[in-house]
Amino acid sequence: MDKLHKALDFCIRHQTILGYSIVSLLTAASEHIFSSVVFKCPCNSKNMLYGSVFLIVPAFILFLLGYMVNARTWRLLTGSCPPEKRCSCSPWGVCTRYCLILVPVTAKASVAPLTWIAVALLRASFYECAASGSSLIKNLVCKDKGQECHKLMVKLPCDEKLSEKISSEFLALQAQSQLIGWFLIASIMTVALISTCISRCCSPVSYLQLRFWKIYLKKEQELFEIKAKEHATKLAEINMNCFFEATDPAPFQTPSNEDWRKVS
Amino acid sequence: MDKLHKALDFCIRHQTILGYSIVSLLTAASEHIFSSVVFKCPCNSKNMLYGSVFLIVPAFILFLLGYMVNARTWRLLTGSCPPEKRCSCSPWGVCTRYCLILVPVTAKASVAPLTWIAVALLRASFYECAASGSSLIKNLVCKDKGQECHKLMVKLPCDEKLSEKISSEFLALQAQSQLIGWFLIASIMTVALISTCISRCCSPVSYLQLRFWKIYLKKEQELFEIKAKEHATKLAEINMNCFFEATDPAPFQTPSNEDWRKVS
Amino acid sequence: MDKLHKALDFCIRHQTILGYSIVSLLTAASEHIFSSVVFKCPCNSKNMLYGSVFLIVPAFILFLLGYMVNARTWRLLTGSCPPEKRCSCSPWGVCTRYCLILVPVTAKASVAPLTWIAVALLRASFYECAASGSSLIKNLVCKDKGQECHKLMVKLPCDEKLSEKISSEFLALQAQSQLIGWFLIASIMTVALISTCISRCCSPVSYLQLRFWKIYLKKEQELFEIKAKEHATKLAEINMNCFFEATDPAPFQTPSNEDWRKVS
Repeated sequence: MDKLHKALDFCIRHQTILGYSIVSLLTAASEHIFSSVVFKCPCNSKNMLYGSVFLIVPAFILFLLGYMVNARTWRLLTGSCPPEKRCSCSPWGVCTRYCLILVPVTAKASVAPLTWIAVALLRASFYECAASGSSLIKNLVCKDKGQECHKLMVKLPCDEKLSEKISSEFLALQAQSQLIGWFLIASIMTVALISTCISRCCSPVSYLQLRFWKIYLKKEQELFEIKAKEHATKLAEINMNCFFEATDPAPFQTPSNEDWRKVS
Repeated sequence: MDKLHKALDFCIRHQTILGYSIVSLLTAASEHIFSSVVFKCPCNSKNMLYGSVFLIVPAFILFLLGYMVNARTWRLLTGSCPPEKRCSCSPWGVCTRYCLILVPVTAKASVAPLTWIAVALLRASFYECAASGSSLIKNLVCKDKGQECHKLMVKLPCDEKLSEKISSEFLALQAQSQLIGWFLIASIMTVALISTCISRCCSPVSYLQLRFWKIYLKKEQELFEIKAKEHATKLAEINMNCFFEATDPAPFQTPSNEDWRKVS
Repeated sequence: MDKLHKALDFCIRHQTILGYSIVSLLTAASEHIFSSVVFKCPCNSKNMLYGSVFLIVPAFILFLLGYMVNARTWRLLTGSCPPEKRCSCSPWGVCTRYCLILVPVTAKASVAPLTWIAVALLRASFYECAASGSSLIKNLVCKDKGQECHKLMVKLPCDEKLSEKISSEFLALQAQSQLIGWFLIASIMTVALISTCISRCCSPVSYLQLRFWKIYLKKEQELFEIKAKEHATKLAEINMNCFFEATDPAPFQTPSNEDWRKVS
């Protein structure tokens, strides 16, 4: 049992990485399902629209979902614009505080959409469909081949043999898509590593202190949950007794609204 | 066991998201069953009616179901129109109060029907059948192709080869349906995120206080259940004793109807 | 149960080697998936680019990932450039200390990318594609065979029969790739062995003392975790009580920022 505990401890300690891995795997799996079951390139002048929608809109939806399930977004926003009290502190300070919280939240929310785009580019079917309808790509490929080439171009994703006919010199659309995908992943990783490095470098506290604060925050949250439950039970019991026995409610010590605001 | 508890705690804490996910998955699964087993496009002039019914009526049923299973609807409605007492408070205040409760209930009840419509649009079979019978789409596709095209149009969902014959330039009906589906999902998510943001922003209490109130409400409900059982047992026992021993009922403290109304 | 414990003990004692083996196996498996599912050599003048990207970019991504998941990188960087205190000790000493930590971290981060490159070379498909487009290789193979050979060369990865036509004397590209792969693995292993030997040779402490230090460091970390949890629990409890009972917080002994820095 002791060893099992250690394994679970390992999971909990690395839960951020494990969580991201699971989210990425789920995204990749759903991308696989969509591109093989639902996606059918129309192979006419609407290729560009159809392909782009499958590439971008699901990523956008995943991005919004990422914001929604993040508790810190709500902790920041809840009660931040109360109708009675507005702009008591300087707007500049508020703006800075928002940015400091929104940047990591945005970074976390971007994991799933970027995975979607990267996997979709590596699988190449969405990009192939979109690019075959794009006038920029068409002009590049059919530079001096006449109008016939333009018409064949949009049929490309539906007919594998056409690819060889049109252009043996130009890089195939699927290969383009995969190259873009790889470079996208590489640049995202680089940016992520560098930005984490910088943010860590400039932090005023050392590694172990940061560790301690993380542990403290977790403990505090757990204790808050327990204390709040106790407090709520007491309050509810008193109110219930008042109701059924029709006595006046006894005065009960409860934190004021002002206190709550400071704690959050 | 301790870790198992944590896992369960995690489930309970995220129960709203998990609940919505389960509802959405069930809806998507049932949509899959319906569109592959039950749905058969008639391929005649009744296409429009048949397709729309499969697209909209199940969504409407799910919407009503969503209202039915929500306890807050019943808490709000029960006893709100007592026959003897009507319009004691101003109708405007009542209306505002109703709206404030009905909006979140409606939002919750809309999850399942919107999932149904979105999944149905992405699978495209219902929309294809409905659109092939719609006169608007028919006129767009068969602009200068004569009456023959109109007749072929309604046969479209039953014959895959026809699609190429009729129109290679016009966006295929299935592709249209999927695009509409994606945009529908994206716009729902955007509206949901923005409206939650605004409602949270303008709330007079902070995040932790909101947390506390949720815990309190839950505890109160549990305690009410327990107290009500005790109270009811006592009252029933007294009444039974009175009946069998034919004595006068002892006076027993019970909350009045007026008290009950205030608490609800 | 006793045997199971021994097996688990064995796993934990050799966890470094086991960890590397798992990482290597995962990398090899993903390489297999990529080269068989996603990779399709375009067989035109872009061969060189396409093949190199598949060979190098994933290795680069794995290298960055290796840095990211290594806790020692963050322990070194966190708070190393605090805004208020800069360059208190000599820059030379800092640089040496950085190098001493970065070298083993880099070595650990290189396991996965080197595995990727080695496996890819042994499977030969990426290298074959890249080499068939490289002008250096083309000139070597087609030394006195005219322009036709150059054109056939780029088609090589897509057509197995061509290989025999072009050159039976020259070593096939696949064989080249595998030889390079073997030599790469051999040289990495040699370098790793020699460098570990040297670092161990020049260490001021003996083998058993090193063992002891490793055990000590691990124990210290475990104890830190436990103590930090206790401390955090106490601090959180005191703060919670203050909040709910509206009393003044009692003074609580906490290490200062300066102490934290020294410990890290």
